[in-house]
Amino acid sequence: MVTDFKAMRVTALAGGVGGAKLALGLQLALAPGNLTVIVNTGDDFEHFGLAISPDVDTVCYTLAGKANTEKGWGLQGESWNVLTALKALSAPTWFQLGDQDLATHLERTRLLQAGWSLSQVTEHFCKLWQVSSHVLPMSDQPFRTLIRTQTGELLAFQEYFVRERCEPAVAEIMFQHAEDIQPAPQALKSVDAADLVVICPSNPWVSIDPILALPGMVPALKKKPVIAVSPIIQGKTVKGPAAKMAQELGLEASAAAVLGHYADFVNGFIYDQLDGDIFTSDAYPGIIKKATNTIMKNDEDKLRLAIETLKLGEFLINNIYHHD
Amino acid sequence: MVTDFKAMRVTALAGGVGGAKLALGLQLALAPGNLTVIVNTGDDFEHFGLAISPDVDTVCYTLAGKANTEKGWGLQGESWNVLTALKALSAPTWFQLGDQDLATHLERTRLLQAGWSLSQVTEHFCKLWQVSSHVLPMSDQPFRTLIRTQTGELLAFQEYFVRERCEPAVAEIMFQHAEDIQPAPQALKSVDAADLVVICPSNPWVSIDPILALPGMVPALKKKPVIAVSPIIQGKTVKGPAAKMAQELGLEASAAAVLGHYADFVNGFIYDQLDGDIFTSDAYPGIIKKATNTIMKNDEDKLRLAIETLKLGEFLINNIYHHD
Repeated sequence: MVTDFKAMRVTALAGGVGGAKLALGLQLALAPGNLTVIVNTGDDFEHFGLAISPDVDTVCYTLAGKANTEKGWGLQGESWNVLTALKALSAPTWFQLGDQDLATHLERTRLLQAGWSLSQVTEHFCKLWQVSSHVLPMSDQPFRTLIRTQTGELLAFQEYFVRERCEPAVAEIMFQHAEDIQPAPQALKSVDAADLVVICPSNPWVSIDPILALPGMVPALKKKPVIAVSPIIQGKTVKGPAAKMAQELGLEASAAAVLGHYADFVNGFIYDQLDGDIFTSDAYPGIIKKATNTIMKNDEDKLRLAIETLKLGEFLINNIYHHD
Repeated sequence: MVTDFKAMRVTALAGGVGGAKLALGLQLALAPGNLTVIVNTGDDFEHFGLAISPDVDTVCYTLAGKANTEKGWGLQGESWNVLTALKALSAPTWFQLGDQDLATHLERTRLLQAGWSLSQVTEHFCKLWQVSSHVLPMSDQPFRTLIRTQTGELLAFQEYFVRERCEPAVAEIMFQHAEDIQPAPQALKSVDAADLVVICPSNPWVSIDPILALPGMVPALKKKPVIAVSPIIQGKTVKGPAAKMAQELGLEASAAAVLGHYADFVNGFIYDQLDGDIFTSDAYPGIIKKATNTIMKNDEDKLRLAIETLKLGEFLINNIYHHD
């Protein structure tokens, strides 16, 4: 019987900005050290010879209180001297490399070349930044999300997302290296050890699916109480191309479609109160659905949504997963 | 018969700071486009995954008027935001990466990975920076100068030079990849096409010897009027470890030793007036020796030394190499 949601051990699955917001809420709600975040690395890419892990950085920066919440990406108090100099060299500047952010990429690249794993590098940064939670890149091996556009172009995810500003219509989402990838050493263990797993409001198709594609991940989730939080509100997203993508892929862009996507292994589903009436009483009867305000504009919003998620988790554990 | 030294086509061999100074003097003295500088790449190394070419950059920055002449290295108006951030990440900061300088390394790395040669990258930068001279890295293939210290350590040149501040006593200078290296496409051609070759006052053992080690280089020099300028003045150097190294290697640290080192293929030798009396009348009788002020504190000094060098070149061409 869980009597204090703060004491729960929670593993969250997250992509970039939206996922990082709820992860921060969970970190604020839980006892220090009780949150583990498994982060999508399908967006990772090489740029100027540097190893860049956009979602891992967004999650770490956010949990460290270093994220630029006004811009929604990058670091607070960032400067752009190198980017200005790159512009003067006619170098590509579509990926906005801030000076401080660049130091992260440089040091990560150096450590990876010295034989560290991405997990070890991430743990090292989190220690330096005094992040109380555990951040796990989903895998230490390369995994690449590619976007095939409706004009037949094959784009690395960041090329699609940043350089092309999500403008090309998506024909297919492809995972490169998915067949022989292994989860990061602690990833499945953290799911096994969790009281509750939370799927953050990240893009289901490009941010969460790579994590779900890891061998052993879905079977591990099936043994646990899992709550997903919808990133889609009234057919739209707060940020990012999930809704646009869904339409282009011939999927429904709705909270219901998100639930359908996860229905195999979730026990609880949180969606926005603006979508309050979308589920008929016979839809996914085994899954507890809860409508609430899911928009996270500030840390109070994040904490509130996290507590609602954890309380639904408590209910699931005590009423469905209660084995005492 | 050469009647105007400005019209001469000159190829200079150079390492870093000292060599770049005379190269700038030569650029100021000659008609635009008439100077080609072949630059040592034995100092090149990989740091944080980036391809760094210290001597090539020093020469390009100097010829572009972008070099920080107060510091003696790096760029004018440089900022250090990334380095500060690297320090905060406990990353190694012994190699001082300025923000603008870093942009050069990033873009060079990107272009090399895209299949450009180091020569092409260097030409591209020189065009952007409106450098009228031609700067040629000595080779497009990796060539690495290593320092074996008297305690048996094997250091990459920049590790010895910057990280260890030239403090370890040198037992041996080693060239890695020297056996199968080829000169850069234009390097030998620029020697063949030159009216005069100038060996700049760079470290003979670590900055010029790598260039001389290129297959075909010494034979090409032997066909040309060649003037060397001594980097050693009264047993010392203006900058850099050449004199200290010479002593540790059991060589004489003197202008005479420098001349001895180059005696096989030079026709003229310029050394400092402070060393005015070091040559006996029977020393290297075939080589014209000229004492002058070789210290280059400002652009006037550089131009003056360049003009003295070019005038000695004129004399050599008209009196020794005059085939009309």
